[in-house]
Amino acid sequence: MGKIITFTTDFGLKDPYQGAMKGAVLSINPRSSLVDITHLVTAGGILEGAFILLESYSYFPEGTIHVAVVDPGVGGERKGVVVETDRYFFVGPDNGLLSLAAANENVKRVVELTERPFFRDTVSDTFHGRDIFAPVAAHLSLGTNPGAFGLETDALASVEIPLPVKKRRSTIGAVIYVDTFGNLITNIRKEDLPAGPDMLKVTLNGHTVTGLKSTYSMASAGEALALVSSSGHLEIAVNSGSASKHFSAAAGARVVIEPLEKGGAKK
Amino acid sequence: MGKIITFTTDFGLKDPYQGAMKGAVLSINPRSSLVDITHLVTAGGILEGAFILLESYSYFPEGTIHVAVVDPGVGGERKGVVVETDRYFFVGPDNGLLSLAAANENVKRVVELTERPFFRDTVSDTFHGRDIFAPVAAHLSLGTNPGAFGLETDALASVEIPLPVKKRRSTIGAVIYVDTFGNLITNIRKEDLPAGPDMLKVTLNGHTVTGLKSTYSMASAGEALALVSSSGHLEIAVNSGSASKHFSAAAGARVVIEPLEKGGAKK
Amino acid sequence: MGKIITFTTDFGLKDPYQGAMKGAVLSINPRSSLVDITHLVTAGGILEGAFILLESYSYFPEGTIHVAVVDPGVGGERKGVVVETDRYFFVGPDNGLLSLAAANENVKRVVELTERPFFRDTVSDTFHGRDIFAPVAAHLSLGTNPGAFGLETDALASVEIPLPVKKRRSTIGAVIYVDTFGNLITNIRKEDLPAGPDMLKVTLNGHTVTGLKSTYSMASAGEALALVSSSGHLEIAVNSGSASKHFSAAAGARVVIEPLEKGGAKK
Repeated sequence: MGKIITFTTDFGLKDPYQGAMKGAVLSINPRSSLVDITHLVTAGGILEGAFILLESYSYFPEGTIHVAVVDPGVGGERKGVVVETDRYFFVGPDNGLLSLAAANENVKRVVELTERPFFRDTVSDTFHGRDIFAPVAAHLSLGTNPGAFGLETDALASVEIPLPVKKRRSTIGAVIYVDTFGNLITNIRKEDLPAGPDMLKVTLNGHTVTGLKSTYSMASAGEALALVSSSGHLEIAVNSGSASKHFSAAAGARVVIEPLEKGGAKK
Repeated sequence: MGKIITFTTDFGLKDPYQGAMKGAVLSINPRSSLVDITHLVTAGGILEGAFILLESYSYFPEGTIHVAVVDPGVGGERKGVVVETDRYFFVGPDNGLLSLAAANENVKRVVELTERPFFRDTVSDTFHGRDIFAPVAAHLSLGTNPGAFGLETDALASVEIPLPVKKRRSTIGAVIYVDTFGNLITNIRKEDLPAGPDMLKVTLNGHTVTGLKSTYSMASAGEALALVSSSGHLEIAVNSGSASKHFSAAAGARVVIEPLEKGGAKK
Repeated sequence: MGKIITFTTDFGLKDPYQGAMKGAVLSINPRSSLVDITHLVTAGGILEGAFILLESYSYFPEGTIHVAVVDPGVGGERKGVVVETDRYFFVGPDNGLLSLAAANENVKRVVELTERPFFRDTVSDTFHGRDIFAPVAAHLSLGTNPGAFGLETDALASVEIPLPVKKRRSTIGAVIYVDTFGNLITNIRKEDLPAGPDMLKVTLNGHTVTGLKSTYSMASAGEALALVSSSGHLEIAVNSGSASKHFSAAAGARVVIEPLEKGGAKK
């Protein structure tokens, strides 16, 4: 138990950084199992990293230690923390990166990382992933009590995914993530949708998609569609294509959903 | 044995998808060893994914479970299957992706994946990699008999690498894959080549390469050469350069091989 | 112990090559732990690969086997070697790739890889990573004595990071690596810097940065700064930005450091 450690960073896959961080873990616990969630978060993209962590952490077994490092403020004022929840540990900078996942779990305590005996002997001011977060995760994987790393702290800095706004007849949301397929993931959740999958009209950048499909292949090749993503968000996609290109849309684009008018069939 | 699980997908390395899929495996068998073959198959590129799997699966030890997910038809008509061969298991959509590797092995049975107790509790219509294929692979790694997942099925959908065409004096083939170095891998196999390494003339996009070398460095830097690739295909390369750029050639480009005329030495 | 094997190559992450190499290791030792340092070294970039290995290898536990393959001369004259040091093993082509890391360690012996029983049954002329280096690393991880692979050899081919030149009042160095954040890593080391962090002036492509900061966030967003990197090199960065773009600078760019004149305070 507790020996799986995941990584979510903006370190990229070319530089020595992610390798050095893993080496730092393995030097303390060579038996830990290391899994990359991603090292391709946009540089400094705290909200993006928080979202990717949110969408993946819960599929791992209980006891997994999730290390996340998107850390433009490294060495400065921001604290380093371990967040202990009922099911997982999260380790990283207290800059909001851990907050979306933590808000989804039952947090037992947040501990500020101050006890240097658990860090690497030399702590650089610019690479806490290697020198603090990796060693702390390794010690957690060996069963060290989180309380050993420092004092409990109340606050956890947070980032927020903006909520959609409900109007009388419509809901106004936004694209919050564009995936590698060009699918547009929105902040509108399944439970925000009007009842009846045929009764939905989605408007984005002046284009309209009607109805809610359940699979990509229910649209023709090249045709746009709306569906509920595998993570429960309204997603706008193009079968065998990129919705991002089709709609010229990026993260932040405004999405409006309305119930579909039955053509002239009003009573 | 049987605890190594590999992944070949088009999920990319940034999004939460490949991490979630691995989490789903580890939630069932935290002791499995996970190895990425690639997550960078071109989106929806079934033939490309099938080729990459073909060129790598056989180097893994017997009992390895190969999961491949390039799945534009997810949630639709196509079946999910496990293919059991003498040496390996292959798990993925039945859309041709598994067919090149399977055709290379002695297939014992193909089982359609229908038994929901082996899937995740909630199965999304758009992410069977996480919700069906990962859990099935994890159960296989724990020793579950493939017959438990569903009924045997006869057919396995297939894709084909086009065969080269043999004419009286020449063989007409094609580039089937361009690798990261810009090397052009063709569908012409070692055994299709005329005898005598000096007796070969290769024509591609109006350019000609003569003779067959055994290493890149037998050509001068920047010079084009032909050789037999590490997987047994005729490969056109440029020493310390990119043949793809040199010849402006991509997958599909026509390649002609002929025996080399000895200069004026006809009898 | 000794069962961790790392990889540093230019194979890329899409092609079947890195997967096949890992399969070749696991076929011999399925219990080895495989860690990617990187597969994204620039194709044929021996010095770059040597630098990335240098900056990451030492964070791994003693006994780790580091496999590095950037090998444009594969199949030709260059030898394959294992370098045994007090703490690590390095396996790869003898073309300089291993030399920066080896020079940092206490080398016990260099063994030329000639004993075919330890290689794959068929050795291709173009993929020694899979057919020689992977199997040798796997055998090392099982405890095979390096002497079994061949005879000791004296020389290890080497590449050099150019040293900075010290003038009477200035030091002239160069950018040796640009990381994924656009940070410019120079060949000027901490110990080459004039005393007093405020007393430093750095000139690059006609731009000047004064003073030495300890963290990125000590500069304003978008502002350039100089600091000592996590690996002990002078690094030029832009807080929340790319110094590479800001200064239009790439590897090789000339960097001059001088003590800062106190404004008009000369005696």
